[in-house]
Amino acid sequence: MSIQHTVVFRLVHEPGSTAEVEFLETGRATLTSIPGVTDFAVKRQVSPKSDLTWQFSMVFADQAAYDAYNVHPAHIEFVETRWQTEVATFQEYDFVAR
Amino acid sequence: MSIQHTVVFRLVHEPGSTAEVEFLETGRATLTSIPGVTDFAVKRQVSPKSDLTWQFSMVFADQAAYDAYNVHPAHIEFVETRWQTEVATFQEYDFVAR
Repeated sequence: MSIQHTVVFRLVHEPGSTAEVEFLETGRATLTSIPGVTDFAVKRQVSPKSDLTWQFSMVFADQAAYDAYNVHPAHIEFVETRWQTEVATFQEYDFVAR
Repeated sequence: MSIQHTVVFRLVHEPGSTAEVEFLETGRATLTSIPGVTDFAVKRQVSPKSDLTWQFSMVFADQAAYDAYNVHPAHIEFVETRWQTEVATFQEYDFVAR
């Protein structure tokens, strides 16, 4: 069963800043390079009922593809070198068909 | 610009209970009857990093359609008669193209 992996987050960078754009673009380039990542999307979160402002979303064909992503060196490096310092707060959600 | 309106939630009902199924089915029937609601989906939230367990997702063609939904009597009645008593906790997010 396919799994939509999502994370909603807010960056430490100013909205509209070059640093913000660079983070989003590097995230896209890095994460889409990992085998098994499909339907990758960056969206703006605009509900005033949350203070989070961005979403990364991707789809894995199955749990094995998701597991492989989690331990992939490119994913781990992105988390350690970018995510942990440039993301102020975030929340993960994974969705599957009912 | 289209808007994906989502709410992630947990019910007061036991997982797998008849009351749970009935809530989800009534939600689907009620909300999809409202003009402007498209691509309605009920999904399970399965990440252990959140204690929310369901998602309703729908897409509006524009802000006007979203506004009309918010004030539609069927939406207001569902919130007042079902949502407020049967949902333990929830978080809304709205996503738009970057």
